[in-house]
Amino acid sequence: MSCCITATLVHDDIIDKSAVRRGRPTVNDVWGEDKAVLFGDYLFAKAAQFCASTGNLRVIKLFSQTLAAISSGELNQAFDAFNLEQTHEHYLDRISNKTASLFVLATESGAILSQAPERSVKALRDYGYNLGIAFQIVDDILDFTGTEEELGKPLGSDLDQGTLTLPAMLLLERYPEDNPIKRFFQNWGELENKKQVIELIRDSPIVQECYDIAADYCAKACQNLNLLPDNGVSQVLMDLAGYIGTRRN
Amino acid sequence: MSCCITATLVHDDIIDKSAVRRGRPTVNDVWGEDKAVLFGDYLFAKAAQFCASTGNLRVIKLFSQTLAAISSGELNQAFDAFNLEQTHEHYLDRISNKTASLFVLATESGAILSQAPERSVKALRDYGYNLGIAFQIVDDILDFTGTEEELGKPLGSDLDQGTLTLPAMLLLERYPEDNPIKRFFQNWGELENKKQVIELIRDSPIVQECYDIAADYCAKACQNLNLLPDNGVSQVLMDLAGYIGTRRN
Repeated sequence: MSCCITATLVHDDIIDKSAVRRGRPTVNDVWGEDKAVLFGDYLFAKAAQFCASTGNLRVIKLFSQTLAAISSGELNQAFDAFNLEQTHEHYLDRISNKTASLFVLATESGAILSQAPERSVKALRDYGYNLGIAFQIVDDILDFTGTEEELGKPLGSDLDQGTLTLPAMLLLERYPEDNPIKRFFQNWGELENKKQVIELIRDSPIVQECYDIAADYCAKACQNLNLLPDNGVSQVLMDLAGYIGTRRN
Repeated sequence: MSCCITATLVHDDIIDKSAVRRGRPTVNDVWGEDKAVLFGDYLFAKAAQFCASTGNLRVIKLFSQTLAAISSGELNQAFDAFNLEQTHEHYLDRISNKTASLFVLATESGAILSQAPERSVKALRDYGYNLGIAFQIVDDILDFTGTEEELGKPLGSDLDQGTLTLPAMLLLERYPEDNPIKRFFQNWGELENKKQVIELIRDSPIVQECYDIAADYCAKACQNLNLLPDNGVSQVLMDLAGYIGTRRN
């Protein structure tokens, strides 16, 4: 019995901390899981209504494809949880679906609705993709390098959910035999292993390596913008790419 | 501690039985809650894609309105859980959103997509509404009068979730002072009270009263069909209304 109690306490310790986002309690935490799920459905529905109100079939189709991409990306992540046999391609495919597709929806829809020429629609689509990938890579770095105050959620929360992100993959490749990620996944809840993972990643060149990869995607995003008319708006998008590639929270 | 253990066991007893629908384990039960939620999102997205593929803006708008209606109906139900101060209007409003709106989406969209005249679109919309209300009332009766084998889920599962349906409301009105529903809600998990609610409803005229109300809606649904051309298809819809008003599982 005491074993069960201990396990529950450790588990609760992790879960309770995860009940905040950007330092504020989640809907899940305040209203409970059932209502949070229904409220999520309601927000989906309201988004669909706004989208339908544009009256633009191409945008509506893109919106519904994006919903499918996001949810399949999140599903893949859930099914891949605690699976150590994942490649960089898996990771890229997953973040392309769960994050970059949403950026593409925003940038491509804007182009379509403003009746931009097809080459601009494609340029903004590619910009959204590259920006989205860079955003997620930096997000995954910050989960190890940030502070709980900056992030508004516990450090290493991806590991808590069994999710292997790029920094964790690089650490696994560096130490394929004795690796604290393996130990953390095998003895889920032993926080000492998680602490070790975080320290190893912070003290290695992995962080810079990941920022470099993100910077490459930001550079590609900026190249995409070169196809657009050179005006104040594309400069704002360029600045956004610069911010996303270097953000620290 | 033993008090907690007992509470957990009673709770688990209820929850475990609810992990089946139509006699088969739910996705929630097989894959866990997180994946079930994501899979629900994925199905929403696929439905949105099919809908968008019709290319009909009116149907797409109706679809998104319906998603909002269903989720707000379910949310209202969740927020009204264990609230004994609900009127018949509350109930009707809730089942109109959470159930009848889905029937309306099916019948009205069919009419729109087959380019039926406006009076037929309206007739099929009204038919869907009345059929949906009747369907839900009968569903709520069966939650008390069916068998677990027929229903494929435990009897009185609405009460387990704190949901007051029409039969329960009528029982509360008949016994406003000492009522086992009040006792069950106040001492949630005491199955003896739930058993008493089920027996009292089964042995009273409440069941017939509810079937009569459902039959009125079915009759209205059939009247709506009178506005359509008299052909084989409207006869099928008429038969469907007859089945829904009298179904026993």
